Amino acid sequence: MVNQVQTVDDTWRRCSKSDSSGASNSGGESSKESSRSSTPVLDTDRTDRLRDKMRRRTESGDHWFSLEFFPPRTASGAVNLISRFDRMGSGGPLFIDVTWHPAGDPGSDKETSSMMIASTAVNYCGLESVLHLTCCNQTKEKITGYLSKAKRLGLKNIMALRGDPIGTDWEEEEGGFNYATDLVKHIRCEFDDYFDICVAGYPTGHPEAQSYDEDLKHLKEKVDAGADFIITQLFFRADTFLKFVRDCRAIGITCPILPGIFPIQGYQSLRQLVKLSKLEVPEEIMRVIEPIKENDAAIRNYGIEHAVGMCRMLLESGEVPGLHFYTLNREVATMEVLRQLGLWIEDPRRPLPWAVSAHPKRKVEDVRPIFWASRPKSYIYRTQDWDDFPNGRWGNSSSPAFGELNDYYLFYLKSKSSKDALLKMWGEELTSEKSVYEVFTSYIMAEPNQAGHKVMCLPWNDEPLAPETNLLKDELAKVNRRGVLTINSQPSINGKPSSDSIVGWGPPGGYVFQKAYLEFFTSSENVTALLQVLKKYEPRVNYHIVNVQGQNTTNAHDMQPNAVTWGIFPGREIVQPTVVDPVSFMYWKDEAFALWIEQWAKLYEDESPSRMIIKYIHDNYFLVNLVDNDFPLDNCLWQVIDDMFELLDVNPLEQCP
Amino acid sequence: MVNQVQTVDDTWRRCSKSDSSGASNSGGESSKESSRSSTPVLDTDRTDRLRDKMRRRTESGDHWFSLEFFPPRTASGAVNLISRFDRMGSGGPLFIDVTWHPAGDPGSDKETSSMMIASTAVNYCGLESVLHLTCCNQTKEKITGYLSKAKRLGLKNIMALRGDPIGTDWEEEEGGFNYATDLVKHIRCEFDDYFDICVAGYPTGHPEAQSYDEDLKHLKEKVDAGADFIITQLFFRADTFLKFVRDCRAIGITCPILPGIFPIQGYQSLRQLVKLSKLEVPEEIMRVIEPIKENDAAIRNYGIEHAVGMCRMLLESGEVPGLHFYTLNREVATMEVLRQLGLWIEDPRRPLPWAVSAHPKRKVEDVRPIFWASRPKSYIYRTQDWDDFPNGRWGNSSSPAFGELNDYYLFYLKSKSSKDALLKMWGEELTSEKSVYEVFTSYIMAEPNQAGHKVMCLPWNDEPLAPETNLLKDELAKVNRRGVLTINSQPSINGKPSSDSIVGWGPPGGYVFQKAYLEFFTSSENVTALLQVLKKYEPRVNYHIVNVQGQNTTNAHDMQPNAVTWGIFPGREIVQPTVVDPVSFMYWKDEAFALWIEQWAKLYEDESPSRMIIKYIHDNYFLVNLVDNDFPLDNCLWQVIDDMFELLDVNPLEQCP
Repeated sequence: MVNQVQTVDDTWRRCSKSDSSGASNSGGESSKESSRSSTPVLDTDRTDRLRDKMRRRTESGDHWFSLEFFPPRTASGAVNLISRFDRMGSGGPLFIDVTWHPAGDPGSDKETSSMMIASTAVNYCGLESVLHLTCCNQTKEKITGYLSKAKRLGLKNIMALRGDPIGTDWEEEEGGFNYATDLVKHIRCEFDDYFDICVAGYPTGHPEAQSYDEDLKHLKEKVDAGADFIITQLFFRADTFLKFVRDCRAIGITCPILPGIFPIQGYQSLRQLVKLSKLEVPEEIMRVIEPIKENDAAIRNYGIEHAVGMCRMLLESGEVPGLHFYTLNREVATMEVLRQLGLWIEDPRRPLPWAVSAHPKRKVEDVRPIFWASRPKSYIYRTQDWDDFPNGRWGNSSSPAFGELNDYYLFYLKSKSSKDALLKMWGEELTSEKSVYEVFTSYIMAEPNQAGHKVMCLPWNDEPLAPETNLLKDELAKVNRRGVLTINSQPSINGKPSSDSIVGWGPPGGYVFQKAYLEFFTSSENVTALLQVLKKYEPRVNYHIVNVQGQNTTNAHDMQPNAVTWGIFPGREIVQPTVVDPVSFMYWKDEAFALWIEQWAKLYEDESPSRMIIKYIHDNYFLVNLVDNDFPLDNCLWQVIDDMFELLDVNPLEQCP
Repeated sequence: MVNQVQTVDDTWRRCSKSDSSGASNSGGESSKESSRSSTPVLDTDRTDRLRDKMRRRTESGDHWFSLEFFPPRTASGAVNLISRFDRMGSGGPLFIDVTWHPAGDPGSDKETSSMMIASTAVNYCGLESVLHLTCCNQTKEKITGYLSKAKRLGLKNIMALRGDPIGTDWEEEEGGFNYATDLVKHIRCEFDDYFDICVAGYPTGHPEAQSYDEDLKHLKEKVDAGADFIITQLFFRADTFLKFVRDCRAIGITCPILPGIFPIQGYQSLRQLVKLSKLEVPEEIMRVIEPIKENDAAIRNYGIEHAVGMCRMLLESGEVPGLHFYTLNREVATMEVLRQLGLWIEDPRRPLPWAVSAHPKRKVEDVRPIFWASRPKSYIYRTQDWDDFPNGRWGNSSSPAFGELNDYYLFYLKSKSSKDALLKMWGEELTSEKSVYEVFTSYIMAEPNQAGHKVMCLPWNDEPLAPETNLLKDELAKVNRRGVLTINSQPSINGKPSSDSIVGWGPPGGYVFQKAYLEFFTSSENVTALLQVLKKYEPRVNYHIVNVQGQNTTNAHDMQPNAVTWGIFPGREIVQPTVVDPVSFMYWKDEAFALWIEQWAKLYEDESPSRMIIKYIHDNYFLVNLVDNDFPLDNCLWQVIDDMFELLDVNPLEQCP
């Protein structure tokens, strides 16, 4: 449980050398809104635009990489791609980009559209993202509509392309989009400087261009029209790219030029790509590949070796600040190349304990309720309509309007596992509440259940236990076995270095702190005993106890939020990124209870005993959270639970009023 | 140095039993302004109005006291009275009140007016205050003008009185203010519920009333017109008051009735008061006093004994929730009575490390720059025109508009010591910079200077060293001797209980933290060496170094504020009441340098060598502040200074560029 961390940005790790201009700008901007509540800007990267991040990384000599993906064809493909964003995002790409296929309804609201995939990458995975856009055969109104939508969704970068004409007899259209240059001009004309714009470069010339030099001139036109950087078509020899860069510089193209790297991953995909892009595969590569063309693993290994060699030459040339990878939506080859190059960040530093969103609206957000720690995408979705975000503090008993649980939300709710897999993990047939307790216990212990299947997830948690929570494993298992069904917890921390590999976050040289937290479902009998016990722990332990009907008991002072994670850093104000907030707990409660039914009960037949058991828990159990305020002392929450069991053992039949 | 604490309110010490209704209201109010940045409300008393505080204290059975003062006649009397507010405020009165004398221009802007004294008590001393107001012979316009001004100055409570008619032939005026009731009605009519209103009760009947019963009826009218509570005229027997309360209750007066306690302090003052109030001193008192009427001390002792006895009877009756004292602007007798009754709070808990202001506009204020720690009144004055106050955090490099140093400000700047006393402490004649170093050192050590006079204050500090700073005394003396002229400092603290008697503040059950801080003037030679040394301490030590011209060197990240005092409390967000803010440091710099000239140089003749020495320091020294960010480790700032001296000893002649 605990904050399934999906760190997706190396952010300030590399921006600590930055000058103050960027942040000063942002300070100036927010001071317009209010002179006294601007953000502490823990992380300059969050507020910078892509071209500034690129410039700073280039100036510092700090090589980066970026990753290209295409939109999936199916909804389950989308779920998989988004998990891939999380995994590949954790290696620290400077940005990702999502291609645009006019035939695939790329600007729609479908979960598989280019627009929605890029939006998800930005908003839910916190990735700086570039959306491709092709203009060929499109009206200006249509293009402006796409751009407006992209802007509304928080996208800030466009790769401006002409795209392939539909049909063979394409002719230039007076006043229409004939070249990518027209699109660049249109974006600058309609959206001024809002978007960062990328354009394509062709190291061997565009196949339709009259000549290599003619094509270079077109590229210069695109840059002069307002493009910020160039990504090249793939190529097979470092020299090809380096010559291209020299030629670009010679005619006055000064912006960054990123080499497009294509690790060869298989014979068929190579053939197809070469055909599409009208490239020739060099003789020396064909000589290696032809003899092993039936052996996918061998080709992939060669592809990795070849890409690594080429990338090394590029980086060593001093002309290449970063590498752009055509991933073909696969992970293995690209990650391996990046690992060998030392560009993959194995243990990324987290700017905050939770993964930040890259939507510009959320750039000041630095506090969230702890409840959604394992469901950050749900939190982001439910707060997407907020106009401003907590900055520095959560606020006192304000009534944040959380979005409803609706269909789109359920897309993110959906487990990565199939119904079959879930039934194996959570039980084909439940016989009692006890069998539910066992599922929880198996999950905690990462051990197989009675049927021999490992429980890899729970409705409240789509991932195995976080390393931090693992520290609490034995205690958690003990209480789950007895029906204290834990869904979120964190240990207390009294000033560990911010660089700590398990619990650290934020800039170097700081100290992080936590109050112990425990959240669980439990029966009303247990709650009656618990309330009795909690009297002994005033004011050390704060609690909130609520059932599905909203019957609520708490000792929270004036319904104020309780900061449970905070950090102290050199030269900064205090950062308190996680709170237990009484008001938002009521919204979380709806979601937490709904998951029993939506994800678990509905696996079974209507009226089946298994379904009735889950429904009984949903209807009768309470959701409880406990905070131990005395963070420098040993966590007392286990003692609270022990005391509860002890009381129950003495007087087992008492009922909750 | 360090935060000369003038705690003036026992505040939350007694409000922890409060229900949540008050704070919920305040939450609701602030959520109108912004849904996400309301105050954590460390201290419910700060946001409650007087009648609510009174009600909560009454309900909890927690006895309180209040203190009455009259306005001073001279400016130096005003300085003394304000120091008295600070001293008597520290004992924890629920409120103070300031009387109104129509002949003394009570509503003017003069520093001795009732209006300005009450305003000072609220704004600068943080005392809940009641301003008296008499209406006799006044026009409605005049009265409305006074009330508007009072509201503008942050006053929230009015004692509504008729006052004595001018001349002997007073007659009722049609539609005018004939009785206090008319004033109560007028206040409610013109200002709705803004003010809490107090009225006077006469335990033996008003001298001009037709009868005791008739007077009770008038009192009932005043309460029905909208008064919130009653303070009685003085009396000499507990029975007198208790009968009065019974009679009030009998005719339906239900509001709080506070007994006015007058500790007899001398024969003459008693005679005068009795004459004015047309009271008779009981036989049993006269019998004691007459024989000792020449012996002031004996009378005062009797007065204390008598008052304590009477107060005990009142409190034990169960009819008296709090006691109101007529202090006659003296401290000893009232404080002694309160001490004997156990109502005086010897060691008041501080809601924040600095004294809060009671102006309603400042009720959310919970962060201040550390620079004004010893000059809180100057800080309050210079920020009086702000519309909102830092709440939860200081904000990122916003440009707060600090008020100018002008005349009224200089009133608060003025030392309590006379020019003669200052010359004795700071030197009749200075011979070199070294003699200035010695003054600083004597102040730190609380030892006599070479001329044998104890140095009790410095221009930057009108009080002896704070207990907290005393912890650093030896280190401070050592560096001052060598020309590191310290004016503010705090030790590092790594999680002491909030109840700690020296460094604690805030609600019980919390932990307080500090980063070590040191602020000093020093020569440009020292600064050159210091900058060299500071390179070794990156990023552990943050510094700001500035001279009188504003030449400024810092390593502050993006000019962000650095939190140097913070507290973690049960069920709350983090509170960070003190910051080192780069922007406000520039405003403080002007003030800190000006004090050399205004308070010290000007003690000496123009062109005199002593004046030239101070002027030289003012013109050439730098103001430096240092923060050690590594609060869990031993404070490294002394090592920084040692390293600086070591470097200077090796290479003593280098000059600052």
